[in-house]
Amino acid sequence: MKTYETVRGMRDFLPEDLAKRQRIEDEARHLFRLYGYREVETPLVESFDLLSAKAGEEIRHRMYMFKDLGGRRIALRPEMTASVARIVAVKLRSEPKPLRLGYISNCFRYDNPQMGRYREFWQAGYELFGSENPEADAEILAVCHDLLQRLGLDFSMKLGHVGTLRGILEAEKVKEASQNIIMGLLDKGRFRAALKALRELGVSESCLKTVTGLQTLKGFEAEEVLAKGEEATMGNDAATRSLENLRAVVTLARSAGVKCPILVDLGFTRGLDYYTGMIFETFVPQLDIALGGGGRYDRLVEVFGGEPTPAVGCSPGIDRIALAMEKHGLFKSLNSQRNTVLIIPVSKTQSSNAMALATKLRDANVPALVEISGRGVRDALSYASGLGFRAVCIIGPREVELGKATLRDLESKVQTEVPFDDVVAAVKNLLTGNS
Amino acid sequence: MKTYETVRGMRDFLPEDLAKRQRIEDEARHLFRLYGYREVETPLVESFDLLSAKAGEEIRHRMYMFKDLGGRRIALRPEMTASVARIVAVKLRSEPKPLRLGYISNCFRYDNPQMGRYREFWQAGYELFGSENPEADAEILAVCHDLLQRLGLDFSMKLGHVGTLRGILEAEKVKEASQNIIMGLLDKGRFRAALKALRELGVSESCLKTVTGLQTLKGFEAEEVLAKGEEATMGNDAATRSLENLRAVVTLARSAGVKCPILVDLGFTRGLDYYTGMIFETFVPQLDIALGGGGRYDRLVEVFGGEPTPAVGCSPGIDRIALAMEKHGLFKSLNSQRNTVLIIPVSKTQSSNAMALATKLRDANVPALVEISGRGVRDALSYASGLGFRAVCIIGPREVELGKATLRDLESKVQTEVPFDDVVAAVKNLLTGNS
Repeated sequence: MKTYETVRGMRDFLPEDLAKRQRIEDEARHLFRLYGYREVETPLVESFDLLSAKAGEEIRHRMYMFKDLGGRRIALRPEMTASVARIVAVKLRSEPKPLRLGYISNCFRYDNPQMGRYREFWQAGYELFGSENPEADAEILAVCHDLLQRLGLDFSMKLGHVGTLRGILEAEKVKEASQNIIMGLLDKGRFRAALKALRELGVSESCLKTVTGLQTLKGFEAEEVLAKGEEATMGNDAATRSLENLRAVVTLARSAGVKCPILVDLGFTRGLDYYTGMIFETFVPQLDIALGGGGRYDRLVEVFGGEPTPAVGCSPGIDRIALAMEKHGLFKSLNSQRNTVLIIPVSKTQSSNAMALATKLRDANVPALVEISGRGVRDALSYASGLGFRAVCIIGPREVELGKATLRDLESKVQTEVPFDDVVAAVKNLLTGNS
Repeated sequence: MKTYETVRGMRDFLPEDLAKRQRIEDEARHLFRLYGYREVETPLVESFDLLSAKAGEEIRHRMYMFKDLGGRRIALRPEMTASVARIVAVKLRSEPKPLRLGYISNCFRYDNPQMGRYREFWQAGYELFGSENPEADAEILAVCHDLLQRLGLDFSMKLGHVGTLRGILEAEKVKEASQNIIMGLLDKGRFRAALKALRELGVSESCLKTVTGLQTLKGFEAEEVLAKGEEATMGNDAATRSLENLRAVVTLARSAGVKCPILVDLGFTRGLDYYTGMIFETFVPQLDIALGGGGRYDRLVEVFGGEPTPAVGCSPGIDRIALAMEKHGLFKSLNSQRNTVLIIPVSKTQSSNAMALATKLRDANVPALVEISGRGVRDALSYASGLGFRAVCIIGPREVELGKATLRDLESKVQTEVPFDDVVAAVKNLLTGNS
C-alpha cells in the first residue's frame, strides 16, 4: 500500500512540537500588547512582482513562484516586510504615525533543508513606521531583546549599518543595483568575489582598501569600533553620518533595556535589498545561524506607492528560537491532559448520562472527555493513565440508580461516590489539589 | 507610480479584522482544551496526490496545484482532513485510541470570490479517530455546537448520512467512483443531472424513485423523517442501518448538549469523497452558505497507509462564522490601546529617561509606548488621544531634575507629578480605575 509523506523541507507539528512553537508565539503576542504593536495578517499568496521588488537576488531565486489559473505570476511570501509595507502604503495611508504593526506568519523559501532551516518557516515581526529617529531603531532592538530574554535565552546581537558601505560605494558612483550585488556577495561570506566585482566596476584602490578594512572592524566595545570606523571612512559624509547614527542607536538601546552583548560589525550586510540604515541579527552560542534580525528600510513604503515613510523592523525566527530553546533545555515538559477528567460509562446504557455529565463539567470550564469506545472500565482506566489524566468518573447502572458518580483519583487511587450535582465541585477540588 | 494590490480572492487582515478572527480562534482553542483535542499543524504545501486522493472532483479542480523546482506536483491544501489523517496513518500509528486532534489552519481553493467565500480561508477543526460508535459522532456535533453557541450565534444543524444513498446505489451495483459523481452532482443541487447519470448507469426505475423520494425527506422532527426514510428504503439493509445510526447520533447529541434545531435531511450530500457515514452542516438564517460541517470518514486513514481507523470530524469555517457574527452584531468594539500609556519626552534630551521608564513599566506588564517622533508635547497628546490611550507620562528637564514624571489622565485631564519610583504603581492605579 502506498504511504504518503510530507514534501521535502516541510514539517508536521505534532502536539508537543506545536505547543513549543505556541509558547514562543504567545510571548511574541504578549509583547505586541506591551509595546503597542497591533497585529495584522496578510495573504500567503501575493503577486510575484510585489514580493520580488526589493527582496534581493538570493531570495528572489528561492521563491515558490507559480502561475494561477488566470495566468498571473504569484508566489508564496518569502518574508513579511514587503506585505506589511504594502498595507501601510495602500490601506493604512492615513493612520496616525508612528504606526506599530506586528505579525506572526509562515513564509516559504526553496532553501536546502538543514539544521534550523526549513522550506516552510515561521516568523514573528515588529514593524515601526513613521520615524527616522534612532529612538525607533532602539525600540526595535529592545523588543527583539525582550522577546529572547523573556524566553530565557542567552544571546548576543550583531549590529551594523548599510549606510557605511553604501556611502563609500556611492562616492565611487557605483549604482544601487551594483551595490546590492556587492552586499549580497558579502552577506554570503564571498569576500573575494565581492572584491573582484568591485574591481570590474572600476572603483579606486583606496575604496578597495576601505571596503577591506571595514570587514575587519568589529568588536563588543562599540565606541572603540565606531572610532576606528570613523577614521577609516574619514571624509565620506554619508559613512560618517551612518556611524554617528549607529552610536546613537547603541546608546538609546542600552537605555531601552538592551543588556546583551552587542557586537558592532562594520562589515556586516544582510541579503535584502530594502535596507537603508541600521541592520542587526541575534545569535546564541549553540547555533551558527541567526535567530532573526532586522533593520531600517526607509524607502520601501514608497516603492509600493505610499507616502515616503521611514521605517524600521525586525523578524525573530520562531523555528530557530525553538531550536535554541531546545538546546538550552528551556521547554518544560507539560502534560496538557493532566487537568482533564475522563468519564467512563460502564456500559452503553450509561452513555447519555456520561455525555450529559461531560457537558456539565465543560460548562463549568473543566476539561472533560467521555470514554466513547465502549470498552470495559479496566481498559478505560489504563487509557486514562496512559494519557496522563489525573481523574476519572465512572458511571454504571448502580450509580445512575443512586444519582451518583464514582470519582477516582488516579494518583492516590482513592475512590469516592459523589452525587451528580456535586461532581463539578468535587472534580475541581481534586484537580486543583484541594481534596 | 505603480501601486500594488492583493491577489484576487485574498485578503489583508487589518488589526480590527484580525482581532475578530482571533476572537473565534481563541474560543476554538479553548474548546480543544475542554474536549481534550490536542492541536497539530501540518504543512500548507503537500503532494498533490495526497490532497486529491479523496477530495472529490469539485475540490480537485479548484486546487492551487504547481510543480516545485524539483518537478514534484505539489499543491496548497484545500482542506485539512487529508493531512490530519496522514499524520494518524504515518506518525501517530501507535498512539492510544480514541485519538482527538484539533487544528486552526488556512486553506486555499480557486473559487469565485463571493460573500463568505475567499480563495484563502481559515478553518478550525476537531477530528476524533478510533471509534465507530455514534457517541463519537455525537461528540463532534456537540463540540461544533458548543463553539457556535459560545460565540453567541443562533443557528441550526442539517444532518444526513451518506450510507443511505450509498446503500441504495450499492444494491444496484453502482461502483464507488460513480456513486461519488452522483453525490457530487446532488451536492451542487444538480438533481436532474444526477438522475440522468443514474439512468445512463442503467439503474432500476424503483431505485430512481427511491433516490427522488429521499430528496424530499427532510424535517425538524427527526423521528418522523427517519421513520419515513425507513419506509422508503425498506429491504435495503445498509440504508436501514444508516438510518438507525442517524437516530442514535441524534439522541446522543441531545444528551451531549446539542440544543439547536436539527434538520434531518435524507437527500443531503457533501462534496468530499471520503465520507462514509453521518454528515452535517451548520447554518444561520442570515447566510445562504454553511458555516462549516463535517462527518464520518472511516476509510481515509487506510487510504494513506495506516491501520483501519474509524473517524469522524468537523471543520467550522472561521471566515463565515466571523461574517455571521458581524451580521448578528456580536463583535464588541474593543479599544486595544486603552490600557497603554504613552511616555512623552519633552525634548530629545529626555529620550533615554523615557525609554528607561517604558522598560520599567513593561517589566511590570504595563503596556507602554515612547513618543519617538520628536514632536512637541501638544502634538504628542493629540496622537495619544487619537489612538484612544487613557494615560500619558510627560518627562521634561524639570521632571528629570526633580526625579519625577508628570502623569496625565486623558479622560479627566487631571495631571499629577509622580516620583520615578512610583510611576508603575500610579499608572496601574490610573488604568485599572483605582485612582
